[in-house]
Amino acid sequence: MDGIIERNNQLIVDRIREGAPFLIDVVPAKEKIKEFNERKLLLHAGPPIQFDDMTGPMQGACIGASIFEGWAETEQEALALLRGGAVDFMPCHHVNAVGPMGGITSGSMPIFVVHNRLTDNEAYCTMNEGIGNVLRFGAYSEEVITRLKWMRDVLGPALSKAVREIEGGMNLNVLIAKAITMGDEFHMRNMASTLVFLKEISPYLMAVPMDNQDRKDVIQFIANAEQFFLNIVMASGKAVLDGAREIQEGTIVTAMCRNGKEFGIRISGMGDQWFTAPVNIPKGLYFTGYSQEDANGDIGDSAIMEAYGLGGMAMVASPGLARFVGAGGYKEAREISEKMSEIVTAQNPNFPIPSWDFQGTGLGIDARKVVETGIEPLINTGIAHKEAGLPQIGAGQARAPLACFEKAMEAYAAKQNAHS
Amino acid sequence: MDGIIERNNQLIVDRIREGAPFLIDVVPAKEKIKEFNERKLLLHAGPPIQFDDMTGPMQGACIGASIFEGWAETEQEALALLRGGAVDFMPCHHVNAVGPMGGITSGSMPIFVVHNRLTDNEAYCTMNEGIGNVLRFGAYSEEVITRLKWMRDVLGPALSKAVREIEGGMNLNVLIAKAITMGDEFHMRNMASTLVFLKEISPYLMAVPMDNQDRKDVIQFIANAEQFFLNIVMASGKAVLDGAREIQEGTIVTAMCRNGKEFGIRISGMGDQWFTAPVNIPKGLYFTGYSQEDANGDIGDSAIMEAYGLGGMAMVASPGLARFVGAGGYKEAREISEKMSEIVTAQNPNFPIPSWDFQGTGLGIDARKVVETGIEPLINTGIAHKEAGLPQIGAGQARAPLACFEKAMEAYAAKQNAHS
Repeated sequence: MDGIIERNNQLIVDRIREGAPFLIDVVPAKEKIKEFNERKLLLHAGPPIQFDDMTGPMQGACIGASIFEGWAETEQEALALLRGGAVDFMPCHHVNAVGPMGGITSGSMPIFVVHNRLTDNEAYCTMNEGIGNVLRFGAYSEEVITRLKWMRDVLGPALSKAVREIEGGMNLNVLIAKAITMGDEFHMRNMASTLVFLKEISPYLMAVPMDNQDRKDVIQFIANAEQFFLNIVMASGKAVLDGAREIQEGTIVTAMCRNGKEFGIRISGMGDQWFTAPVNIPKGLYFTGYSQEDANGDIGDSAIMEAYGLGGMAMVASPGLARFVGAGGYKEAREISEKMSEIVTAQNPNFPIPSWDFQGTGLGIDARKVVETGIEPLINTGIAHKEAGLPQIGAGQARAPLACFEKAMEAYAAKQNAHS
Repeated sequence: MDGIIERNNQLIVDRIREGAPFLIDVVPAKEKIKEFNERKLLLHAGPPIQFDDMTGPMQGACIGASIFEGWAETEQEALALLRGGAVDFMPCHHVNAVGPMGGITSGSMPIFVVHNRLTDNEAYCTMNEGIGNVLRFGAYSEEVITRLKWMRDVLGPALSKAVREIEGGMNLNVLIAKAITMGDEFHMRNMASTLVFLKEISPYLMAVPMDNQDRKDVIQFIANAEQFFLNIVMASGKAVLDGAREIQEGTIVTAMCRNGKEFGIRISGMGDQWFTAPVNIPKGLYFTGYSQEDANGDIGDSAIMEAYGLGGMAMVASPGLARFVGAGGYKEAREISEKMSEIVTAQNPNFPIPSWDFQGTGLGIDARKVVETGIEPLINTGIAHKEAGLPQIGAGQARAPLACFEKAMEAYAAKQNAHS
């Protein structure tokens, strides 16, 4: 039994390692996700949830998206619409997408399109809005809506034209490998990868026929958004893990996500099924004036990074971040990654970490090992205020709840028994 | 006696720590260095040397510079000129400048202008040419000359206009602090700092009135030149150390440089005087087809980085580079920096290294401590072929010879005795 699981897990892990994600386009979400054209629809982070059950920041983002889409002009109008059942909700994950924090995605928002050449599948993610008052943390002021419209009208089309000029698309494995030598763990720190992305895209942006002031604004926007690459690498992780989970066997974690109330995981052997448990409140450092009492529950699809072996799993790559999320210094960062090594299947030779003597990032969290050792994957994360309408209040870490993995293993055991 | 030296050294070190280098302009060298207007002059790396004594790569660069300046049309014409005494030579260091490898600088080459606000002095360095066939390693083919002309006619003027638009200039301490968290040690690895520079300058470049194809070429050139920031940070180190060495007391190393034959150092208490000893041959890794037998002696003003506490002194910041220069993994990189801590005066809190638990870079190499411990500063370096006309053949490390420090300490002791 264990031998068969081992072999199946190896197949999954091979596919993750060999995954070949390329950024090939930027388009309005509705061009790729046909469901947007059929009804008023918003995608959200995490496993399925309805509006009334959502936490503050996700509800705030729904208000903002409704105003952005022109469905409502005021908060009150938007709330009436959202509470009245006029808008459908669906997890990003159900339509090949991922979304950070609230993950709220509407049809007119531009999305990155990442193609996995190994398995010929695509994954999508919205564009990073920068920091401060942003929709993903639940803010929906005029500033937020104005920025979203600029992203729709200027940033998205410009990047679309630039990306389409890159022959074969932008090779994201190369970019990740480069930036992991520069202190990024790709969840809470994407400073280097954003710079590498800017470097790679700039010459193409120069050649896009467009207003020179717009071109300057686009360059400046990316230059200022230190987490700009997060959304691209999230789509990259999603494309690679979705390619791997076409093989519906074994116990490899193929997704981790949170909707603010429930943490959900998928494992390879159980296909599309979610295994959920209540989220934890992240522990970490809070911006002045805020404390853990203000914090929303763990939220966002960005835990795809940890499922992909990055983020908290790769803490040793990013000792500069460790302090910022309250995880100590280099020694503690290394200890975290070494602890996480106990629950993964292999190391990824494509992403060697210099500050870890060139050991590769973790490859394939094994739900069996999580249950056996009781070691819960560590997620690096931004912290949202529990009320709607506010910006980020801190950064820290949260654990993926053990119960998700126990439920997944029970279900997989039951499935195996049913087949034998 | 030692107490007085301690106090004086502390003054120097305070000035290094408080140095405030800003990139304020890019101009042709002759605009800042008046000696170029008086006669045919070439600046070179290291302590004083004449043409016939130079090693191959420096002679090759002289040939290239002569052709670039229009003094000669062929290698033969250039050699006749150079051997015939028609061209004067002077160390970069004697006119507030530094130059990597051969360091050959002629009047029409654009230079970065770095202003140290603390002490109101300037320092200069040419612009990085990228890799491959480049003048600094002694190549002088048509490709090299064509690139230098493009740098003179397009790159230099574009960056000049862009830099002048930055209010107050570009704060280089901020840039260094950022990039040291991204794996740069600033001598052999400037990948992150070059990206941060590109990020900072790009929006200004967008606003420069210029041909769009030229703008694209400029962006692409910087994006491709992973060591582009080296020349800027060299000028930064020079500006800071020159500001500090206005105080002519104590035993702090204020410059280290090599002309391919002699390694030269200056210490604070001995002003402009050079203390020299024969250079070592760098040890390291060679590109395919080359070995240590082909290597030129240690060469270049870039050892200003180590005098500034970066480069080999800050090896722990750059475990990704350690392997490339043959220095092992993270543990060995950390051991190097810890060893180097024994010969410096303090740590620089402005440049904390995350992979070293946020300890700062070394501040103020103390020639006394070098002599007492016998620990020679470790220099990270590119390796030139000993023959003229060839590109880089490897990367490695070389030691600053102990004899330089012994001579400097003897001279300082003699000066102190003469005054007492």
